[in-house]
Amino acid sequence: MISNRESKFIKSLQLKKFRQLENQFVVEGAKNVLELLHSDLEVIKVFATNSFLEKYQEKLSAYSALLTETKEVDLKKVGSFSSNNAALALVKIPPQTGIDDTQSILAFDRIKDPGNLGTVIRIADWYGFKQIVCSPESVDCYNPKVISATMGSFARVQVHYAVLGELLNKSEHVYGTTLQGDNIHELKFQEPAVVVFGNESEGLAEDLKQYLTQEVFIPGYGGAESLNVAVSTAVFCDNFRRLLKP
Amino acid sequence: MISNRESKFIKSLQLKKFRQLENQFVVEGAKNVLELLHSDLEVIKVFATNSFLEKYQEKLSAYSALLTETKEVDLKKVGSFSSNNAALALVKIPPQTGIDDTQSILAFDRIKDPGNLGTVIRIADWYGFKQIVCSPESVDCYNPKVISATMGSFARVQVHYAVLGELLNKSEHVYGTTLQGDNIHELKFQEPAVVVFGNESEGLAEDLKQYLTQEVFIPGYGGAESLNVAVSTAVFCDNFRRLLKP
Repeated sequence: MISNRESKFIKSLQLKKFRQLENQFVVEGAKNVLELLHSDLEVIKVFATNSFLEKYQEKLSAYSALLTETKEVDLKKVGSFSSNNAALALVKIPPQTGIDDTQSILAFDRIKDPGNLGTVIRIADWYGFKQIVCSPESVDCYNPKVISATMGSFARVQVHYAVLGELLNKSEHVYGTTLQGDNIHELKFQEPAVVVFGNESEGLAEDLKQYLTQEVFIPGYGGAESLNVAVSTAVFCDNFRRLLKP
Repeated sequence: MISNRESKFIKSLQLKKFRQLENQFVVEGAKNVLELLHSDLEVIKVFATNSFLEKYQEKLSAYSALLTETKEVDLKKVGSFSSNNAALALVKIPPQTGIDDTQSILAFDRIKDPGNLGTVIRIADWYGFKQIVCSPESVDCYNPKVISATMGSFARVQVHYAVLGELLNKSEHVYGTTLQGDNIHELKFQEPAVVVFGNESEGLAEDLKQYLTQEVFIPGYGGAESLNVAVSTAVFCDNFRRLLKP
């Protein structure tokens, strides 16, 4: 059962203000909770239905002290997603570590939509990027909609917040998509690189363009004026991995 | 001004049942309405703010009989998106035409999320695919969230609903992504092709796999188990256009 006090606490964590105050965030859904249990993140509590607890008895055995059996209807009430019918966990926000600039990084200038950030975290994970750096104005990576859209990848990709100009300024290989760039199909890429993507409606800020060592264009063949940021990220990453100089 | 009767009518079109009954759908937002006016679709009415009407006076001159000046607050009230502060149009649903199998087609097996369908329509448009075929269980392409996510591409890409087995059965080149497929970076593709993508959580239906003439795998380099359907579509299309046999 979820007590009234717990229910109120969990709901409060939908807001960034309370996540920062309590240093906790919420992970919802079977897939995300299972990935969480495999990660190094510090789990504080898990609320789960009887059927989830039975199905994953073995995996959950190490966490028995943290488990609370919960009715599906109560899970739906406290969570952000009416589709969550299995499990919800409270997790400690890990301390910010430094950015490791010996590895390639995906950077996002003012990414605002939580679904987009969650999707690019999943894409980063697929393509083997372990770090994302967002400009400080970006959406919070512990927003429940971000966590949900990562499909578990939040547990493997570190998200940093930093002023992008400083990061790009000290990087040798800085790639970014622009409409004037060179055809991505005909390039070679080098690591460690920083690949930077612009805001959903405004694109890359003008003062960041000066840091690009290679402007890249994703060729279009039809009528659309642009691709969304997650789609551009995926197409870039696929070409980047294919075209890395050995 | 939007009358009470109009307001009720517009809101009713959020439901597929009423869209089919009235044979109309709603297009919201400046970008989508402007793309609509450039298309062959039959516009019935346009509600727009004074500033939108002034800004696009020239483009709108051919539609003067259909225009109603509307306050921003009223637009937000009748529309599906609180972010729409410019224009909303009522549009006639065009008659279904036959599928043109002399051109390449993107096909979707039970695509359920309206944001995903809208995004793949935008991707199809970018990569020059003029037709999408969805299985009959898929989300309705005139759903307001679909239209919104297309960013205007709904005006250039035809969406058909058909039993996919029949379509795939008569196509010479049928490509689909599977975990057992060949590395997409090392293939060649031929046109006209049908490229088929599976349901968001269940993937491609087993009885459709028999029609694939080439199973394709998008190589991953990290921990994520899968990519979302719109991301897979984009990565596929990018490689398809790059790897077409001359």
